[in-house]
Amino acid sequence: MAISSELPRHNVHFEPDNIKIQVDPGANLMETAVAAGVHINASCGGAGVCGTCNILVKSGRVESIRTDKISQKDYNRGIRQACQTRIFSDLNVEIPVGSRLEKAVLSREVEEVSAQKPVALVSGWSFNPPVKKVFLELPKPTMEDNVSDLSRLLRSIKQQCKLENISVNAEILTGLARILRTNNWQLTATILLEANSSCRVINIEPGDTRKGHYSLVFDIGTTAVRGQLLDLNRGKVISHCIDYNRQISYGEDVISRIAWSQKTGGLKRLQKAVTATLNDLIKGLINSADIEVQSISHMVVAANTVMTQLLIGLDPKYLRLSPYVPTISNVPLLKAKSIGINTEEHVHLYIVPSVASYVGGDIVAGILGTGIHQSDKITLYIDIGTNGEIVIGNSDVMLTTSCSAGPTFEGGGIKHGIIATSGAIEGFEINPSDFEPVITTIDSAKAKGICGSGLINIAARLLESGIITQNGKINTDFPTKRIRESEDGYEYILCKKIETQIDKDIVITEIDLDNLMRSKAAMYAGYKTLAKNIGINLTDIERVIIAGTFGNNIDIKNAITIGLLPDLPRDRFFFIGNGSLLGSRLISFSTDLLYHGETIANKMTNIELSENTEFMSDYMAALFLPHTNMDEFPSVTIKKGKKS
Amino acid sequence: MAISSELPRHNVHFEPDNIKIQVDPGANLMETAVAAGVHINASCGGAGVCGTCNILVKSGRVESIRTDKISQKDYNRGIRQACQTRIFSDLNVEIPVGSRLEKAVLSREVEEVSAQKPVALVSGWSFNPPVKKVFLELPKPTMEDNVSDLSRLLRSIKQQCKLENISVNAEILTGLARILRTNNWQLTATILLEANSSCRVINIEPGDTRKGHYSLVFDIGTTAVRGQLLDLNRGKVISHCIDYNRQISYGEDVISRIAWSQKTGGLKRLQKAVTATLNDLIKGLINSADIEVQSISHMVVAANTVMTQLLIGLDPKYLRLSPYVPTISNVPLLKAKSIGINTEEHVHLYIVPSVASYVGGDIVAGILGTGIHQSDKITLYIDIGTNGEIVIGNSDVMLTTSCSAGPTFEGGGIKHGIIATSGAIEGFEINPSDFEPVITTIDSAKAKGICGSGLINIAARLLESGIITQNGKINTDFPTKRIRESEDGYEYILCKKIETQIDKDIVITEIDLDNLMRSKAAMYAGYKTLAKNIGINLTDIERVIIAGTFGNNIDIKNAITIGLLPDLPRDRFFFIGNGSLLGSRLISFSTDLLYHGETIANKMTNIELSENTEFMSDYMAALFLPHTNMDEFPSVTIKKGKKS
Repeated sequence: MAISSELPRHNVHFEPDNIKIQVDPGANLMETAVAAGVHINASCGGAGVCGTCNILVKSGRVESIRTDKISQKDYNRGIRQACQTRIFSDLNVEIPVGSRLEKAVLSREVEEVSAQKPVALVSGWSFNPPVKKVFLELPKPTMEDNVSDLSRLLRSIKQQCKLENISVNAEILTGLARILRTNNWQLTATILLEANSSCRVINIEPGDTRKGHYSLVFDIGTTAVRGQLLDLNRGKVISHCIDYNRQISYGEDVISRIAWSQKTGGLKRLQKAVTATLNDLIKGLINSADIEVQSISHMVVAANTVMTQLLIGLDPKYLRLSPYVPTISNVPLLKAKSIGINTEEHVHLYIVPSVASYVGGDIVAGILGTGIHQSDKITLYIDIGTNGEIVIGNSDVMLTTSCSAGPTFEGGGIKHGIIATSGAIEGFEINPSDFEPVITTIDSAKAKGICGSGLINIAARLLESGIITQNGKINTDFPTKRIRESEDGYEYILCKKIETQIDKDIVITEIDLDNLMRSKAAMYAGYKTLAKNIGINLTDIERVIIAGTFGNNIDIKNAITIGLLPDLPRDRFFFIGNGSLLGSRLISFSTDLLYHGETIANKMTNIELSENTEFMSDYMAALFLPHTNMDEFPSVTIKKGKKS
Repeated sequence: MAISSELPRHNVHFEPDNIKIQVDPGANLMETAVAAGVHINASCGGAGVCGTCNILVKSGRVESIRTDKISQKDYNRGIRQACQTRIFSDLNVEIPVGSRLEKAVLSREVEEVSAQKPVALVSGWSFNPPVKKVFLELPKPTMEDNVSDLSRLLRSIKQQCKLENISVNAEILTGLARILRTNNWQLTATILLEANSSCRVINIEPGDTRKGHYSLVFDIGTTAVRGQLLDLNRGKVISHCIDYNRQISYGEDVISRIAWSQKTGGLKRLQKAVTATLNDLIKGLINSADIEVQSISHMVVAANTVMTQLLIGLDPKYLRLSPYVPTISNVPLLKAKSIGINTEEHVHLYIVPSVASYVGGDIVAGILGTGIHQSDKITLYIDIGTNGEIVIGNSDVMLTTSCSAGPTFEGGGIKHGIIATSGAIEGFEINPSDFEPVITTIDSAKAKGICGSGLINIAARLLESGIITQNGKINTDFPTKRIRESEDGYEYILCKKIETQIDKDIVITEIDLDNLMRSKAAMYAGYKTLAKNIGINLTDIERVIIAGTFGNNIDIKNAITIGLLPDLPRDRFFFIGNGSLLGSRLISFSTDLLYHGETIANKMTNIELSENTEFMSDYMAALFLPHTNMDEFPSVTIKKGKKS
């Protein structure tokens, strides 16, 4: 018997999930939750500074440092920061609403995506997946024809498929003799097409298994992971899935993840977190489609550079240190199983190539899907997440950049900001008769906070009605009781305590507005910098393609009103939903497109903004609603407030 | 605590190796010895029929079936067949001399090989190993040049080595960022050259490690495994090694190995046995050369088809079932580590391709090394082992076959036959004055038995002196007291009990002579069949190349006298030692030769003898000493005996 099992251990019980785990005395509560698979929000990744990982200790003894993130009143009733808490007895812990992830909104997103017909703009490809299943009937060996089993197999593939340069995965050898003889020399070979018109036999199965031939595509975001199961025979999406990236427990943004990866064992844990997320999603996809895991033949992933490096277990440290060098931008084909993904040995993972530290394969996939690299039309491609990724160009040239929009649009840095989950305020109007606000929330639930698209709508309406000024201050002269002064400055009450599920007034503060202004200014200055570098004005842009789930929910007019989008005619704007999945799906469907990713990545020039003086002056000029130069926003009219 | 450990277990003590092991009651003694790493000879692989695995139970209780392989006298003093014995108490077991392997003779062989200058006859190649080490000094990244670490590395390799189509092994990615920065962007890349002028980066190390760059070559025989450590910088053999193939415990010939592989878990055990042999040899090579395992860059193996399939874990069942189909004849490059060989992850194993079930990569390597495929001269290539492999041909055409010479030349099927180990009778003369025999033994040790080359010398001399007749019978009229009748027929006493170490007279019987005659007839009929198929007479043969350790020890004249070799002038015969190692070594030294193996394998046509009527009649005609048609052996003169 090992000594460790002789020590007294403590039972920890997490509510409301009703999950139990045993730990050693002194264990950190945050890490215990991670180990138990219980999610607690933690923007800062356990550094103790964000105050989002609050939990309620209902019974049991803990040791916990009280920081200014918890009021004395909350502390007295048992609220603790999970990351600052150590366990010293059996424990009952409740994860309050504010610290929990809600999956309801994610499933809502899946519904919408399935309903929406994806618009692929890329051209010049046919349905011709890079992984094929071929049914073969081999002639039986005789004394006159007793070449090896492998030679017999390859000869037959050559004849039937007109393929040359055929190699084989060593793993198929073990079962080869048996499989050929199991079903009377009839079998199905799975063949991976490679560069230079060569190919590789990656799997063999007795009999005819062509019917089950599927691909998995995933978009691995910093916050959420989205996936689809594709039927490679019919070129159809079979099922969808989405979940939070389990790495969220190690911090909400890439910077916290990088910090975590530098701890002992940290990189491994981050990798395991994302592969565990993928494995659960795969299980779900397979179950919902009622297929066997053996019929998965291929996998494509697109992600930002940090997510890509963490997925394959590469230290992301240098991605955010000048001169911002990724370890790899063009990942060789990997076996999915080799990085811990629960697929069969033969499933190869194609990772869409990236351009630079800040411009990942998700953007390359989006460009591929929309065919910007093939078109004459000057196109602005935008994907707004925690980082805003921007591309301007056409078939001749493409410039790209990533600007740190900050977490504003995902609810970060906003006093009552939350991600787009149930109860988030999304719609906002001002009643013109009494100037009272009219809010709508996701799922029509009791209000819980403000999501990114809601924030844009709120700011636009407040600006248009004169409740806030163009420099983002609250117009205290406005005739409404909704404005009040707090210790953080002036704020506007969107929703009164009694109408919320958080037992607090939901407000928007001048600090919030300031953060929003900085985020949208960064995006706008990003467009301008790229346009100048390419030698055009923003008005020369012929198409604006908005990718991403957040993008899908943006109200274009409101986004122009606050200066987040350029003031162009409405008919130049297109939504494509998740661009990363769109591109990955097309790569799964067509060998013709497989190498577009590399072409695009090679064609794109990345502009680093962090040390760009032009960007800085454009940014300063954009720190106004919508902009200091109103000539750039001719369609926007604003009631002049006082305090400007 | 697991239940199994609660059971009484028995301690088994093996002498003279002084090795102890614990087993459950009822365990098989043979398998216990294998598990303990104690070797017991077992020709039949544990079937109980060969009677070679005799051991002495000194104390303890066993249950054992007595077969006719053990005399009642031996049984009474405690001799048992290990494979027929189960353990029921603590045990002291002694492995008698006759059941033990002796390594002394193997080390003698190593000495000889190192002294001998290998003659490579193949031409048209330069020293240009297929695995290179390249020292690189990369420019440091800047904001203007911040491509990924991998792109920087590949760019530098392209420039410096003039290589295109460079791929990378996924394993190098993990350490890439760190290794580049460890020694100020100076590093050594190990590059594997592949077909179609493409190449692959398989390893990177910080700093300049070019100095340590070695290759391993192995000839895996059914009986012995021979290896060499090569310096890839200087093109030199650094050290040699040899050991019995540990699979010997599962039977002495390939048929017994195949039988063993069909038992539950048998294939895995056979594979482990050979990789364990290789791992021990590698350890020895590394220690004797005083190098680090990290500096091994490459590995080449040649073996017969059964040994090849067992090495990579493929079921050999169909190799010996008509129509004799191997699973694979051209094995793709494997990572040595993937099959259990203790090398670094990046070491790739090249297995020399084979021609057919009976003609393996060892023969192809020998042809490659001797350049028969490049020469006009009609060459007969012979490798005599348990199977005799024969090739006849030149650059135009090559025919090959493998005839079951049987284990005669390795001591099998001969009453006092043993492998060429210490105490084996090798030299044999008849004193012309008193007709008494004069024997010499390996290591001048007390006689223990007769080895293969000894058997040839004995038979030739007995034939020439008229003691045996041309049909292999003993001439009972010959004036010597050495001839006597036993229950097996007449026999000739080579060495009296008192002069041996086995406490028995060492004799040669008419049955032995019969077996010898059948073995040599099979070889000779093999030459004739190939010659006829190619349209020549044996006298047209311009060169005879004799490969193999056994070949090296053959006395050409005596071998012609008994009809084992064709009667050609002495200056047409060449010895090359181990042809398999010769070819493997050259492949390690020159990329030019890497693909010769495949060319040779494709050029060779295998003739199956088992169902060949021409072969059968040639075989019948050769069942005479030297042959029924003396015109084929003009140089052989024989005293006519009576009993013909």
